[in-house]
Amino acid sequence: MNKQFQTLIQDILPVDAGFAAKAKEHLDNLTKPQGSLGQLEDVAAKIFCLQKGPKMLQVDPMHMFTVAGDHGIVAENISAYPQAVTRQMVENFLQGGAAISVLCREMRIALSVVDAGCVGGAFAPHKNLLDKRLGEGTANFAQKPAMDRETCLRALCQGADLSLEAAEKGYKVIGIGEMGIGNTTPATALFCAYLGLAPEKITGPGAGMHAAGVAHKAEVVRKALLLHKKSLQEGDAVDTLALVGGFEIATMAGMVLGAAKAGILVLVDGFISTAAYTAAKHICKNVADYCILSHASAEPGYAAIIDALGDGKPLLDMSLRLGEGTGAALAASMVRAAAAIYNDMATFASAGVSGKEI
Amino acid sequence: MNKQFQTLIQDILPVDAGFAAKAKEHLDNLTKPQGSLGQLEDVAAKIFCLQKGPKMLQVDPMHMFTVAGDHGIVAENISAYPQAVTRQMVENFLQGGAAISVLCREMRIALSVVDAGCVGGAFAPHKNLLDKRLGEGTANFAQKPAMDRETCLRALCQGADLSLEAAEKGYKVIGIGEMGIGNTTPATALFCAYLGLAPEKITGPGAGMHAAGVAHKAEVVRKALLLHKKSLQEGDAVDTLALVGGFEIATMAGMVLGAAKAGILVLVDGFISTAAYTAAKHICKNVADYCILSHASAEPGYAAIIDALGDGKPLLDMSLRLGEGTGAALAASMVRAAAAIYNDMATFASAGVSGKEI
Repeated sequence: MNKQFQTLIQDILPVDAGFAAKAKEHLDNLTKPQGSLGQLEDVAAKIFCLQKGPKMLQVDPMHMFTVAGDHGIVAENISAYPQAVTRQMVENFLQGGAAISVLCREMRIALSVVDAGCVGGAFAPHKNLLDKRLGEGTANFAQKPAMDRETCLRALCQGADLSLEAAEKGYKVIGIGEMGIGNTTPATALFCAYLGLAPEKITGPGAGMHAAGVAHKAEVVRKALLLHKKSLQEGDAVDTLALVGGFEIATMAGMVLGAAKAGILVLVDGFISTAAYTAAKHICKNVADYCILSHASAEPGYAAIIDALGDGKPLLDMSLRLGEGTGAALAASMVRAAAAIYNDMATFASAGVSGKEI
Repeated sequence: MNKQFQTLIQDILPVDAGFAAKAKEHLDNLTKPQGSLGQLEDVAAKIFCLQKGPKMLQVDPMHMFTVAGDHGIVAENISAYPQAVTRQMVENFLQGGAAISVLCREMRIALSVVDAGCVGGAFAPHKNLLDKRLGEGTANFAQKPAMDRETCLRALCQGADLSLEAAEKGYKVIGIGEMGIGNTTPATALFCAYLGLAPEKITGPGAGMHAAGVAHKAEVVRKALLLHKKSLQEGDAVDTLALVGGFEIATMAGMVLGAAKAGILVLVDGFISTAAYTAAKHICKNVADYCILSHASAEPGYAAIIDALGDGKPLLDMSLRLGEGTGAALAASMVRAAAAIYNDMATFASAGVSGKEI
């Protein structure tokens, strides 16, 4: 597992900086004031770079992976919903009634649900379900590591393989999203551990915790970070993910690594998916060239996290706080719009339009 | 003209407040934490209200109107681009190479270009061009009214008729956008006049004016408002639009009024389209129930304008500052997503998913 992981990391290359200038030159020749399409131009330039300067950007077909996992930390009463909901929602994804099911149909995105380790055993086989179970939920990281390093490496490699297979099948863009009752708690712990943020600053209500519950949740995170302090200091980015992460989070981090290796774009969903991205970035900083933060989560701590990450403003800011990949699915339409602009607009010269005078 | 206008205004009714509660009840039963789809839920509720509580929301087909007009105020050197660009860009719209042409194709939106009064005479006929010319550009409102009241009423009625015809043809959503070199200047003057904002606070670079030019532009607006002070104080909202508005702006304001009368949704584009919306709202406040501000313009004054309008946060915030209807076209995908969520998601009961515990 360790060897496969080392090979994966070595194969993730930063994009060639020369492409950015070429993208800008093309965008600046299109019939609009320079930069006036804002983040749409940034997205187009990013795709041009990671696709190594093609004549036409290609962003279809797209594939969404909604990764589900359960969390031992729910024993600490950090969620407003019962753990059974993780499993129930997986069934809902497969039956097509969940928000991510609806949005993937609306946005023409293939959807796979990945079971990374829900409590209650394997699901009945389904064409859209991938069994990548790592156990019956993580351990309670308020008491011990959420998982061991070996399991975390397995999650990373499994996730990477999913992206590599998607790229192999011709998918140009993947989205990552999740379902896991209680998983804003490991996500918060990861942000604190990787980015040096304080639990009381970034802990929020998740799916709907009341104020006293949020304070308790922050305290649970603070104590857990204290418990694992020595291991966190002595270990690497993978150890951090193993200590306070989650099966779905580690699998999504692997998907980011695999997509970067394959050279395809990743649309990162909200709070928890961003924790997976943060883990992947701390494992290999080059992944930033292949990822777009699709939306600003309504979780109150998200702004501080975005500042700390330093990857710029997410694409959308519509007060979403659902997860599942819903923000990534919405952002897919902006990625297609960006590619269309890049591919199909007229230039000042071709359209006979005058440029700026002053 | 005045009689037609009076009838139009009388026919614009506020939505039935009872529908909002019904929409919320339905949205809260869907398998997601309450409110977790943020502005997508607000959009769905708004459509449910203005469509008078249908079983299924209908948001297709959609139609974009990009309205072009020229401005006498360009004589004051307030634009970075030559006036000829208005006309050149209309040709570009019709040839399909402009940003709005590309985005309407990408988003499956029918596009009509409306000539509300470009300098240089009527265009050659084209299937996507509507001749609604009100003159060879407005007068220079730094010296005299941009247009007389009769012309402004004609613009409003012509615009309203375009929306009513679109509704008649079955369009469920219209977008409004514009092209007009120099038109951030009348838009700024309108915001100042309607909302009581100071020119130096909200004047920005438009398509790309340098800092000294922005200061000069603010001064042009300030002096023009002073010149027309008495007429602005004594007149009504239509007079304001006539004094410091523009042909495309008045036509778009009419489109808002007509869409509200017809009961269809309007996606309002950026800075200049919002000025048209502001005019329409001051003519008849009920239009707010039928309009969505599609995106937050990158014009630096836009935030203060949004605060003053009090209609909440625009849907997108992607640093766009192009106009043409581009932000409205992008927001169309969010409107479709909102309708899909409302129409197609499972409920907690139907999916067998547990609710909140605490």
